[in-house]
Amino acid sequence: MSLLEDKTPSRTPLSKLGEFGLIQHISKNFELKNDTSSFGIGDDCAVIDVGQHFQLITTDMLIEGVHFDLTYTPLKHLGYKSVVVNLSDIYAMNGLPKQITVSIALSNRFPLEAVEELYEGIRLACVAYNVDLVGGDTTSSTSGLCLSITAIGEIAKDKIVYRSGAKEHDLIVVSGDLGSAYLGLQLLNREKQVFESNPQMQPDLQDKDYILQRQLKPEARKDIIDLFESKGIVPSSMIDISDGLSSELLHLCSSSRVGCVIYEEKLPIDFMAISTAEEFNISAATCALNGGEDYELLFTISQTHYDAIKDDPDLTIIGHITDKSHGSVLVTKDENHQPLTAQGWNALS
Amino acid sequence: MSLLEDKTPSRTPLSKLGEFGLIQHISKNFELKNDTSSFGIGDDCAVIDVGQHFQLITTDMLIEGVHFDLTYTPLKHLGYKSVVVNLSDIYAMNGLPKQITVSIALSNRFPLEAVEELYEGIRLACVAYNVDLVGGDTTSSTSGLCLSITAIGEIAKDKIVYRSGAKEHDLIVVSGDLGSAYLGLQLLNREKQVFESNPQMQPDLQDKDYILQRQLKPEARKDIIDLFESKGIVPSSMIDISDGLSSELLHLCSSSRVGCVIYEEKLPIDFMAISTAEEFNISAATCALNGGEDYELLFTISQTHYDAIKDDPDLTIIGHITDKSHGSVLVTKDENHQPLTAQGWNALS
Repeated sequence: MSLLEDKTPSRTPLSKLGEFGLIQHISKNFELKNDTSSFGIGDDCAVIDVGQHFQLITTDMLIEGVHFDLTYTPLKHLGYKSVVVNLSDIYAMNGLPKQITVSIALSNRFPLEAVEELYEGIRLACVAYNVDLVGGDTTSSTSGLCLSITAIGEIAKDKIVYRSGAKEHDLIVVSGDLGSAYLGLQLLNREKQVFESNPQMQPDLQDKDYILQRQLKPEARKDIIDLFESKGIVPSSMIDISDGLSSELLHLCSSSRVGCVIYEEKLPIDFMAISTAEEFNISAATCALNGGEDYELLFTISQTHYDAIKDDPDLTIIGHITDKSHGSVLVTKDENHQPLTAQGWNALS
Repeated sequence: MSLLEDKTPSRTPLSKLGEFGLIQHISKNFELKNDTSSFGIGDDCAVIDVGQHFQLITTDMLIEGVHFDLTYTPLKHLGYKSVVVNLSDIYAMNGLPKQITVSIALSNRFPLEAVEELYEGIRLACVAYNVDLVGGDTTSSTSGLCLSITAIGEIAKDKIVYRSGAKEHDLIVVSGDLGSAYLGLQLLNREKQVFESNPQMQPDLQDKDYILQRQLKPEARKDIIDLFESKGIVPSSMIDISDGLSSELLHLCSSSRVGCVIYEEKLPIDFMAISTAEEFNISAATCALNGGEDYELLFTISQTHYDAIKDDPDLTIIGHITDKSHGSVLVTKDENHQPLTAQGWNALS
């Protein structure tokens, strides 16, 4: 029911475009006119030229029931994670985060003590990553909790790393390990179902600390950015892994107009993730390729840096960049060459 | 029902603190550590020192059912207004906005065409105010529409205006007129009720264009910032009027540690607002003092600037700053001296 005449009788469902399609569709009507707007939509951050350096801006919105489930997410962890996922985008351009703003909408089912827990998590992340909370907005919501965080960082002009700089023969590298956050989520959802059918049951989460932490309290890879600095490495391209390795690597290849080959056997997967995947009867490699929320860094470097990184336990070379004509290829353990496909988590699906 | 043990049995309702109380309560645990963080929470914008100039950052979150009602708000207007309310905060520090980021969460009841309308409004505001859309986030929501916009602006270091600079004897000035946006909202709510009880009725909004526009498609006062520049005026303090004149003036006096006297008879109120207030049998002065969403500028200037502004039809001197010990006073038309009280719209009430 509306006071307004319906002038748009045609109705195209958003699911037809998906999140990235929608962003592309909308952003084509916008052009950058201010000369301080160096880079707009299409990378981990927007880039503003503030004179001596570049400033990086990124923003994320987190909705209860879509991005988090308060049944098993402690508010303090939620606050911490909400900050970390934004900082990860700053690091993904080789920058250092400096400030955040936090906006929250919440219904009156949340008492002050809940808000304090949430902000305590935000504060802990600010301390851990040396960023300042400088502003935000606080309002009521009609139903759930909604969080919107903007992070602001900076980077020297000659050290900024975009998604678009990967070159043929560059090595493809990921930090840490993949798939654990997704498996942590599966565990939590399983325990939620058990709990809902029998609230007397104790959650069976023994020995699962690592993968639960990967889901509930991820960290952003500031240490990798420090490593680049100390070794004098500037990656040719970089992106953070929030939607799954496949999806992010395809973004990177598309922006760089290149192809890639990666090897299933090289994928870094934690032993606890492997055993949990077995429990759930799913492929650990699939979790690593398509599970979201790892917040690791995916980057490419020139082969000349091979010696500098080859022995680093936090870095794994998983393949190399090829000419665009070769497409994006996954070589499976049984030597099958498959086209890499993005089955990453789609926020609009 | 929660998997998590309740460690916070005490429950203080948020309404006990209100929005500003909550912000104060939370922000006391956060301190600024980065030397580029010049000013954090407590003004219209955060201030970042980027070297040659200051950068201004402000953010607002708008929730369907709390901040807007899609029954009578065209999505194009909503997009436009969402941008404008953020730009108004940049102007309130004498700055010029340059970039925005826009995050939206929306349920699948919105077709692509609705999203296009929303972004067309955002685009029109970008064109009108010469700002660039540089980023954002797009996600799904479980129910309504949620918008979060961050605006980024800049200002020369010697021209930034805080809320805190008002001095005794300074003139208190407002731009434009007050109360119309609130009356526009009353009209729309009345017509919504009529429509809901009888969908065949045509809305009775004849001759109400101005106050409807003030509610549905407000503008930010870039022209006043240009005027300051052309006349060489830097206000001693400034704030934008989003929650009502009384509330904003009390913020300004509190930040500046001063008192004030304003005169009811000086309040700038449009004739259509006066006649509409009569229709609704409410005081137009009350609407001007406590009605929200006017997005006019409230500022103080030294008396030496009196001649420069006294004949400007867009500016009205409504009173002057006094010593803190005199409190904040409203002189009514019948010469009563009343303490000024904030009955402004409280987002958490």
